[in-house]
Amino acid sequence: MRIDNREFDQLREIKITRDYIIHPYGSVLIECGNTKVICTAMFEEKVPYFLKGTGSGWITAEYSMIPASTISRKARDSSRGKVDGRTQEIQRLIGRSLRSVVDMKAMGERALWIDCDVLQADGGTRTASITGAFIAMVDAFNKLKNEGKVKTIPIKNYLSATSVGIIKEGAVLDLCYEEDHKAIVDMNIVMTDDGRFVEVQGTGEMSAFSRNELNKLLDLGEKGNKEIIEMQKDILKEMGGLEFER
Amino acid sequence: MRIDNREFDQLREIKITRDYIIHPYGSVLIECGNTKVICTAMFEEKVPYFLKGTGSGWITAEYSMIPASTISRKARDSSRGKVDGRTQEIQRLIGRSLRSVVDMKAMGERALWIDCDVLQADGGTRTASITGAFIAMVDAFNKLKNEGKVKTIPIKNYLSATSVGIIKEGAVLDLCYEEDHKAIVDMNIVMTDDGRFVEVQGTGEMSAFSRNELNKLLDLGEKGNKEIIEMQKDILKEMGGLEFER
Amino acid sequence: MRIDNREFDQLREIKITRDYIIHPYGSVLIECGNTKVICTAMFEEKVPYFLKGTGSGWITAEYSMIPASTISRKARDSSRGKVDGRTQEIQRLIGRSLRSVVDMKAMGERALWIDCDVLQADGGTRTASITGAFIAMVDAFNKLKNEGKVKTIPIKNYLSATSVGIIKEGAVLDLCYEEDHKAIVDMNIVMTDDGRFVEVQGTGEMSAFSRNELNKLLDLGEKGNKEIIEMQKDILKEMGGLEFER
Amino acid sequence: MRIDNREFDQLREIKITRDYIIHPYGSVLIECGNTKVICTAMFEEKVPYFLKGTGSGWITAEYSMIPASTISRKARDSSRGKVDGRTQEIQRLIGRSLRSVVDMKAMGERALWIDCDVLQADGGTRTASITGAFIAMVDAFNKLKNEGKVKTIPIKNYLSATSVGIIKEGAVLDLCYEEDHKAIVDMNIVMTDDGRFVEVQGTGEMSAFSRNELNKLLDLGEKGNKEIIEMQKDILKEMGGLEFER
Amino acid sequence: MRIDNREFDQLREIKITRDYIIHPYGSVLIECGNTKVICTAMFEEKVPYFLKGTGSGWITAEYSMIPASTISRKARDSSRGKVDGRTQEIQRLIGRSLRSVVDMKAMGERALWIDCDVLQADGGTRTASITGAFIAMVDAFNKLKNEGKVKTIPIKNYLSATSVGIIKEGAVLDLCYEEDHKAIVDMNIVMTDDGRFVEVQGTGEMSAFSRNELNKLLDLGEKGNKEIIEMQKDILKEMGGLEFER
Amino acid sequence: MRIDNREFDQLREIKITRDYIIHPYGSVLIECGNTKVICTAMFEEKVPYFLKGTGSGWITAEYSMIPASTISRKARDSSRGKVDGRTQEIQRLIGRSLRSVVDMKAMGERALWIDCDVLQADGGTRTASITGAFIAMVDAFNKLKNEGKVKTIPIKNYLSATSVGIIKEGAVLDLCYEEDHKAIVDMNIVMTDDGRFVEVQGTGEMSAFSRNELNKLLDLGEKGNKEIIEMQKDILKEMGGLEFER
Repeated sequence: MRIDNREFDQLREIKITRDYIIHPYGSVLIECGNTKVICTAMFEEKVPYFLKGTGSGWITAEYSMIPASTISRKARDSSRGKVDGRTQEIQRLIGRSLRSVVDMKAMGERALWIDCDVLQADGGTRTASITGAFIAMVDAFNKLKNEGKVKTIPIKNYLSATSVGIIKEGAVLDLCYEEDHKAIVDMNIVMTDDGRFVEVQGTGEMSAFSRNELNKLLDLGEKGNKEIIEMQKDILKEMGGLEFER
Repeated sequence: MRIDNREFDQLREIKITRDYIIHPYGSVLIECGNTKVICTAMFEEKVPYFLKGTGSGWITAEYSMIPASTISRKARDSSRGKVDGRTQEIQRLIGRSLRSVVDMKAMGERALWIDCDVLQADGGTRTASITGAFIAMVDAFNKLKNEGKVKTIPIKNYLSATSVGIIKEGAVLDLCYEEDHKAIVDMNIVMTDDGRFVEVQGTGEMSAFSRNELNKLLDLGEKGNKEIIEMQKDILKEMGGLEFER
Repeated sequence: MRIDNREFDQLREIKITRDYIIHPYGSVLIECGNTKVICTAMFEEKVPYFLKGTGSGWITAEYSMIPASTISRKARDSSRGKVDGRTQEIQRLIGRSLRSVVDMKAMGERALWIDCDVLQADGGTRTASITGAFIAMVDAFNKLKNEGKVKTIPIKNYLSATSVGIIKEGAVLDLCYEEDHKAIVDMNIVMTDDGRFVEVQGTGEMSAFSRNELNKLLDLGEKGNKEIIEMQKDILKEMGGLEFER
Repeated sequence: MRIDNREFDQLREIKITRDYIIHPYGSVLIECGNTKVICTAMFEEKVPYFLKGTGSGWITAEYSMIPASTISRKARDSSRGKVDGRTQEIQRLIGRSLRSVVDMKAMGERALWIDCDVLQADGGTRTASITGAFIAMVDAFNKLKNEGKVKTIPIKNYLSATSVGIIKEGAVLDLCYEEDHKAIVDMNIVMTDDGRFVEVQGTGEMSAFSRNELNKLLDLGEKGNKEIIEMQKDILKEMGGLEFER
Repeated sequence: MRIDNREFDQLREIKITRDYIIHPYGSVLIECGNTKVICTAMFEEKVPYFLKGTGSGWITAEYSMIPASTISRKARDSSRGKVDGRTQEIQRLIGRSLRSVVDMKAMGERALWIDCDVLQADGGTRTASITGAFIAMVDAFNKLKNEGKVKTIPIKNYLSATSVGIIKEGAVLDLCYEEDHKAIVDMNIVMTDDGRFVEVQGTGEMSAFSRNELNKLLDLGEKGNKEIIEMQKDILKEMGGLEFER
Repeated sequence: MRIDNREFDQLREIKITRDYIIHPYGSVLIECGNTKVICTAMFEEKVPYFLKGTGSGWITAEYSMIPASTISRKARDSSRGKVDGRTQEIQRLIGRSLRSVVDMKAMGERALWIDCDVLQADGGTRTASITGAFIAMVDAFNKLKNEGKVKTIPIKNYLSATSVGIIKEGAVLDLCYEEDHKAIVDMNIVMTDDGRFVEVQGTGEMSAFSRNELNKLLDLGEKGNKEIIEMQKDILKEMGGLEFER
């Protein structure tokens, strides 16, 4: 049995609160167990210099943890004067993942800023960020469509993410901090609703892992992401049966 | 009448949610109308070098806005590589104000980190930060006392803050963004429960102000802070009738 | 009696030397007792991006202390790679104060750079900076007018500043370092020649202060600023009876 | 057929020159086709603060490209004042990979600095860095052993890395820049000599990928790494039949 | 006799390998004894803002040492977030020296980036950089001429550099690290093929030096540079008898 | 004739005001024509880490220009977040020059901070800094000796500096900005009272220079420095006939 009494292939409870903040076009509070992240989506009517005049849009993601989100206080990047390596790795992952399901031409020559601000961290903050940011992005594009600035919601697929890993007791889905901290292998899996992979990042933190173990982890990831995407679809229904571009 | 139908001397509704986040010793979500700030208090068992061996503690405050808290996205300080002037001004104000009501000797040779992270900004974020941080600090010291690390809650006074200002229609209490934005004079007032001032910072943004106008603003500030401190006292009762050191 | 034998409401001797440096349009060495600050004013024929095309000008102030200006050497901001919080607070105060008395439209779409470089610090460097920068600014605008680039000196009011505070012996005007260092309450007051306030910044460094004490401090500030503005008027006469826009 | 006439599962020619630079304990020039990286290993007799007194060592990796290594000049991180996200991601990957095969206790309380400086980039610089750094590390530990500072070479496994990816023509091993640039899926695989995985990082750059495609990529990665490790074993024989700790 | 058995006025062996790297227009590995520097030359079709529209080109030089180039590891500037003073001094010297022999008008409104990356340091890295960069620059301009972008190779003179100094045993030419480290006087001399000086930088590291000693050093520098320029001329012949603009 | 009617070998008028600032141990305002620099000397009772426990002292020099010192405003290094290359070059020159005439053992294990802050720049700011800083340093050591902290003034030689250069009209001594700006060759020469050289830095800004021209410049530099050192000796007499260690 796991520390929080879950089955080895059981997700923590996920709760998504839409319109959590008033200013952005899309804003979501996603809670995965004790992990809480605010994901927001805001447009800016200009693109990075390398896209000027191409008609393509761009999506940039930033990720940050408030100092009180962790057990011992996390010093602010702004006080240290630079963004740490882990943060950069995470925001690059979030940005790449979201861009992979968006039709950059159809979104028009504008930037979408995705911000993931972790209020409380208990493992899986980067995967919760992707899952939550996807909903914030849908909301934002929907609002943009309602304003007549895009014709369709320029999204090609649902997108979700979860973590899997090997702990002493075996392979498990959706690790909490306590598990993550002691995991032998740690893997983040980002998937679409047609069961394909967008990102697979596995690390043997304490020990290398066999092809067989890798397969078990992929199975768990597929199961978890499938369940999360079902949840996302329910939310979409709630939003009045939005339809994506595809 | 004011834009949100308040009386000129009427505070916006204040809501304080304690224990908003699980990791810190004290954590509060304070809402003043649409302004929402998470205020947290965490201890670190060391002090800045200039206090080593003195037996005195220290309080440091940091303030930040998440990018989605404002109408147009606020770029992160960490991305720009430095903390902007307004932020520094605010965190210095919060730190000074809190230190003024704490017995630094009695708190022991440790640091208290106060973090104020603005989730949603609608005017008065710095004063809401002070009011909220005060409660988070009480909670944190109370927990420290329960752990036997301090004998009393080393706080000498209640502390609250509010903004006042002169708008076209006259002097008003607790400005929302819309008012603040167009204010002719803007003033932040930090006070204790015995009616004394800790900080008075008034600026003629568009025009200088007379001694008479200054007096009106001080009157409003006194009224507002008095009401806020009553609220804080109610919260303290809720906490089981905590008593401060004095 | 005060440490330097002054009355409680007596300013230190003020000496203003104009044209102290040859390159800037306006340059002043202001001495308030042992405090010495070079205040300069230089134009740049462009404005910050948010003012482009608006026809409005801008005033930016920077403040710095040379390392040898203080009792123990002050490390340079440039060596530390960032501007410290106190410096930012001060340069924001100087900039705001000067802008409040200038007609930004009438000065044309150009920037005025105000630099206050402290050569020797003995309390009151920020208020001396404001008083001195005002004269440098008048000189600079006068030269600009002589060049035919503005029609009038686009200044609406005289502007001066002084510090007041409460020390053990009571409320005093224009604190020297020795007094400032031990002050219970510290306040900076910026005023115009019609007796109105531009900035009031009071801090209970060691203890909060009552409304009554605040009033005493404001009285002292009014007296001090009135005397300083008389001095400024004498200098203006010396300059050949310049007239401001108003 | 591939652009450089290789079979889809064929590595580029790899050439490893040991002792390329005189000062470091281990230094290797690794060439994988046109990709050229200098990998060096240097000890420092101190560890990061979080390991002080634990008896454990540490391995830190840094990665950089000289400006002339790429087709259009790559601006130096030092001129930009910060390390870019891609670089951070890569140096974290190299460091983690090397640490996974070292017995940190047996290496003693010292730091091993791994530096990978790319002289010429033609795809696969991060995987070449890992393969080359492994040999530099063996050399460095061997020298340390000869000096009597460690009893054994504290390495538990051989370690190599290669890239795989899906291009228009299908899944391929060891992508050159031309291929990498247009790859639909891109994956880096780090493995040990017992056929286990240390890192698996796959990204759907232009499109998501199926479980089936993932399996093909893993097969290619296993084949490539097996061949590279054979090469490393030959080099080890050349070094006089060194034996690792296991 | 010198530590490496050279005569007091004898250069170390110099070896110049052209086309060392494939991407840049010019690239040279220069070896002076154990000192090894990669010198590259790359064009960028834009100039610094102060030259826009003038028709003049610009040459910027950057210099860096890989961490493993020195006896104890040299921390990267990028990790420290700033370029150190010695590096800045050196890159300014290289840039100025190269610009002095180029006809900036004839090169057209483009920038030439010179990068000197030290692989192995054993004294004289800055002078080797200048000597090597000169050849890389010739190669780059030659290629530009072959592309029809300039009419002539816009170089007015050969350029070389060497170091001289006074050690315990007397004045010597071309100091290795061991000598440089203990030198009493250290001087870098940059010259053209008509025997004139471009830069003379002499420092009494441990003691001042007389006019007489200065003259001896200048004699040695003239001899060394003459020999180096002969070498450069031989390389030019190898390149098919290129001719400079003059 | 020169622009300011001087002879080709004539220094501008030099004026040295001692005790210009009250806090530092030594402080000098040096004026060379229109160039004005404040040079100060302050002790700190600790040394850089590489000298700890050696009994040796250290001298660090910093150089800065106030923004208003130049014709068009010079942006502050602190605002740009880094020290520019020219500034670094200059402060390294000043530091090296002063250290060359001080007995670092005799000064004890403490640091001497030399600060040169340019108030007004008209050419020759770095050489004026060295000449002025020498006097500030003598004053500072003298005060230290009077306090009984050193036995002698640990200075071995007088030290002065001046600039020479070749302009259209020929070789000249002590260039003002107008001349410096158009100089073909520019050289800074630092010397001791026994006629030896500490630093010789010559640059062919627009053209290389012959050995013959170099000799003329050295002659002028010797003449200029001899005159400056006579002035320094007069000041020393004024100080009551101080004697140096030698």
